[in-house]
Amino acid sequence: MTTEEKSTRSRLVESALYLFWLQGYAATGIAQILEHAKANAGSFYHFFKRKEDLLLAVLQLYIDSLDAVIVAPVREEHADPVERVFGILAFYRRNLIATGCTYGCPIGRLALEIPHEETAVHRRLADNFDGWTSAVQSRLSDARARFPEGTDLATLSTFVLTVMEGGVMQARAKRDIRPFDASVDHLRNYFRLLTSPRPAPVARTERNSS
Amino acid sequence: MTTEEKSTRSRLVESALYLFWLQGYAATGIAQILEHAKANAGSFYHFFKRKEDLLLAVLQLYIDSLDAVIVAPVREEHADPVERVFGILAFYRRNLIATGCTYGCPIGRLALEIPHEETAVHRRLADNFDGWTSAVQSRLSDARARFPEGTDLATLSTFVLTVMEGGVMQARAKRDIRPFDASVDHLRNYFRLLTSPRPAPVARTERNSS
Repeated sequence: MTTEEKSTRSRLVESALYLFWLQGYAATGIAQILEHAKANAGSFYHFFKRKEDLLLAVLQLYIDSLDAVIVAPVREEHADPVERVFGILAFYRRNLIATGCTYGCPIGRLALEIPHEETAVHRRLADNFDGWTSAVQSRLSDARARFPEGTDLATLSTFVLTVMEGGVMQARAKRDIRPFDASVDHLRNYFRLLTSPRPAPVARTERNSS
Repeated sequence: MTTEEKSTRSRLVESALYLFWLQGYAATGIAQILEHAKANAGSFYHFFKRKEDLLLAVLQLYIDSLDAVIVAPVREEHADPVERVFGILAFYRRNLIATGCTYGCPIGRLALEIPHEETAVHRRLADNFDGWTSAVQSRLSDARARFPEGTDLATLSTFVLTVMEGGVMQARAKRDIRPFDASVDHLRNYFRLLTSPRPAPVARTERNSS
């Protein structure tokens, strides 16, 4: 690939990322992407067979930039591993606040919009989710000792993503940050209950049966 | 409205509900809705000014049928109020299983797809979420005594919706029920920790400070 080819391809992918984020996938036409990227149809079809291929490239860009955009800044901000997880959630809160609760997570939006027949796209959406939950799981592993023995940190990371996505969705529908904040507060409370010292089960059984 | 008019309008709304559910909002054209409803453009424009008006009618239908479709059957199935909440979540699990994890919650999908400029639509999406969380909150109120004093059942109901929507989203992206199940399992664990008897705070402080 020549430098100029690389730059045209990058412009197409970056324009598509922006427009899919702004208005969704189905609502964005190839003509609009070409105009935004200042590229012609010939160069589009040189790189991509269909709009779906461009979407796959967009999703790959999200995967490639996850660490630089979301994970690394939080590493600088917080030393505590659990606070790093909540720092990742705060990134989405800032996105919501900055856009008047109109934009949250582009991956979540695409995950519900793209027709299920587009299996390659859904695989790459799933890869995005996996990259995100892996980053969370690795933070939780650093705090392993705080969780009760046998706590499944993989499913707990899935749960953190669930809370982010469900909170973003309701904030967007209501144009109100409160459903997001309420969801994160309950997640925090769950973490507090999970990690706070409790009496040993045997002691509890004794008390209950007395 | 004459009976025939009512039936044409109902057919349009029901066809739109089905097609928006099947393929999303932007991907569904008015022509396709007319064909599915066996109606002509004249009758469409007799009832609706724009496709958005039809969407508002679809969202109203979801609100009107929430109790009959989701809440009432669960009332029959479970006597325990908290189990009724999990019974509502099980409804979405059955939807996912029945469709190979391709369809979950139509409201959530529309909430992320519809452009934020459509404020009337988002208000009605928010009304749908409110109807849903009110139903959950009323079940939780029936179990009020099990929760620690001061537990905010309104935000807890928001959290239940968050878990459903976030779980459905990941199940759809992965074509796998496991992210949904994992999310509901953690919600159950949170409920268990919230509602299980714990030593009074004073006793805990004493133990911690000894």
